[in-house]
Amino acid sequence: MNQNNDFKCHIWFTEYHNNNVALSVRVKDILYREKSGFQEIEIIDTYDFGKALILDNTFQTTERDEFIYHELISHIPLFTHPNPRNVLVIGGGDGGTVREVVKHKSVETVDFVELDEKVIEACKKYMPKLSCEIDNEKVNLIITDGIKYVAETEKKYDVIIVDCPDPVGPAKGLFEKEFYKNVFKCLNDDGIMVQQSESPLYNLDLIQNICRYLKDAGFKIIMPYTYPMPTYPSGFWSFTLASKKYNPLEVDEARIKEALKDMETKYYDEEVHKGIFLAAPKFLKDAVKKALE
Amino acid sequence: MNQNNDFKCHIWFTEYHNNNVALSVRVKDILYREKSGFQEIEIIDTYDFGKALILDNTFQTTERDEFIYHELISHIPLFTHPNPRNVLVIGGGDGGTVREVVKHKSVETVDFVELDEKVIEACKKYMPKLSCEIDNEKVNLIITDGIKYVAETEKKYDVIIVDCPDPVGPAKGLFEKEFYKNVFKCLNDDGIMVQQSESPLYNLDLIQNICRYLKDAGFKIIMPYTYPMPTYPSGFWSFTLASKKYNPLEVDEARIKEALKDMETKYYDEEVHKGIFLAAPKFLKDAVKKALE
Repeated sequence: MNQNNDFKCHIWFTEYHNNNVALSVRVKDILYREKSGFQEIEIIDTYDFGKALILDNTFQTTERDEFIYHELISHIPLFTHPNPRNVLVIGGGDGGTVREVVKHKSVETVDFVELDEKVIEACKKYMPKLSCEIDNEKVNLIITDGIKYVAETEKKYDVIIVDCPDPVGPAKGLFEKEFYKNVFKCLNDDGIMVQQSESPLYNLDLIQNICRYLKDAGFKIIMPYTYPMPTYPSGFWSFTLASKKYNPLEVDEARIKEALKDMETKYYDEEVHKGIFLAAPKFLKDAVKKALE
Repeated sequence: MNQNNDFKCHIWFTEYHNNNVALSVRVKDILYREKSGFQEIEIIDTYDFGKALILDNTFQTTERDEFIYHELISHIPLFTHPNPRNVLVIGGGDGGTVREVVKHKSVETVDFVELDEKVIEACKKYMPKLSCEIDNEKVNLIITDGIKYVAETEKKYDVIIVDCPDPVGPAKGLFEKEFYKNVFKCLNDDGIMVQQSESPLYNLDLIQNICRYLKDAGFKIIMPYTYPMPTYPSGFWSFTLASKKYNPLEVDEARIKEALKDMETKYYDEEVHKGIFLAAPKFLKDAVKKALE
């Protein structure tokens, strides 16, 4: 590649968020491309976001902003639970979530259920910053459909993390009633689940549906939380936490602060833990309240 | 315009955030274009974000996401102060900030200092949802340079809101030491200022400098807060609040809740008020702490 800095000469990857909005990033190189039985997988190296995993032309994760997503999907539920030992991670084949989960000393086993083995293989080879703990001895990788797994397993977990892609194709069932019922069944009596729940600006209806389904499944406490995500549509994203017993706003901050002394984080801290729920926009809180009426 | 929904046929506006990232939105129409003495002004109508004000090819505000920015730049400082009566707004010619400020019953006068009269004129004509309160009787529009204004005025304010564009061109001085000293001088002994302070992901050094300058100017409490902003670079943006006396974390939530009964907001509520500071990412808190050492 020549060193001409005139960016117009170079290759761009463009993700169309819908017919009317697109985000483009300049590409250094295409590291991996393959069509698996489930999706098109690409790993590209970009100038601004480092290496990026792209599934079916959609950003899944990038080295630059992945810490936001992976810290918040993991540490919020794991620190809401006072003693999480057995954790189930569904999806997240890049390994970023698993990397954060194994930071918790209390965690003994992580069952890591991923549909697409090729995503794991590609990320292990090209994105070691994310995949570095997939071979951790606590982690038990199971290549299967998460929807089927929670329907069939008799195991019980303290925390279940659903690190799913958008609700299209094989991931659609991860946003349906039946799935949440099975997740509820797979949790201990004080268990907590958290799920990737799309953009509050673009997908408010979807978030409302998720909340309704979680309520129907039997969860007592249902609370979405939001965060910036530069490479996702609208740059504004959400997780939804559902809990049988523990309220994330009632955690002991001192306990978290103590635990964080041995744990490196860039986004999450004991203040973020509560603040992120309080800081959720009023329009989202109102929508969720309405959905749960 | 034909009704063909194949988006590839249509016109796009693209903002390059830097040489390596670009956000594109599909355009319905160009409503206004003019070169003022200070900048190129465009108002476009877009499919996904409604009408958008563009200055020098950079998104300033759009109808879809402006509520986030304008509510948070206004209500956080105005509710941190127990009784704000005299307010100075520098910049924000679209009128969105002024619209939020006049919602506060305690506010008696708003001196609204904007450099570029043509921005005001264009927004009054094409963006009435934002500019609707510019002619409010509390608002005193002053067309001049905000940097010069705070250097020369002998007036004192309870709250000063610096709704500035990026630190390039005429706005550069709004990010310099001298400016913050003059803002401090223009505030009452319990006064509060807030400033647009760019992206925590892209401009951490700048935020650190702002904090240092604010400390040097004499402010006791200096706290950035962050929020999603879909049409700004990285989708992740910040304001920095500086206060002579009142701490935003020590407000009376019940008082805010009561006041909000007569005030429509979509993003801000009494929980957001505190939560937004707590939810600021650890890497930003650490950087600010370091800057203020």
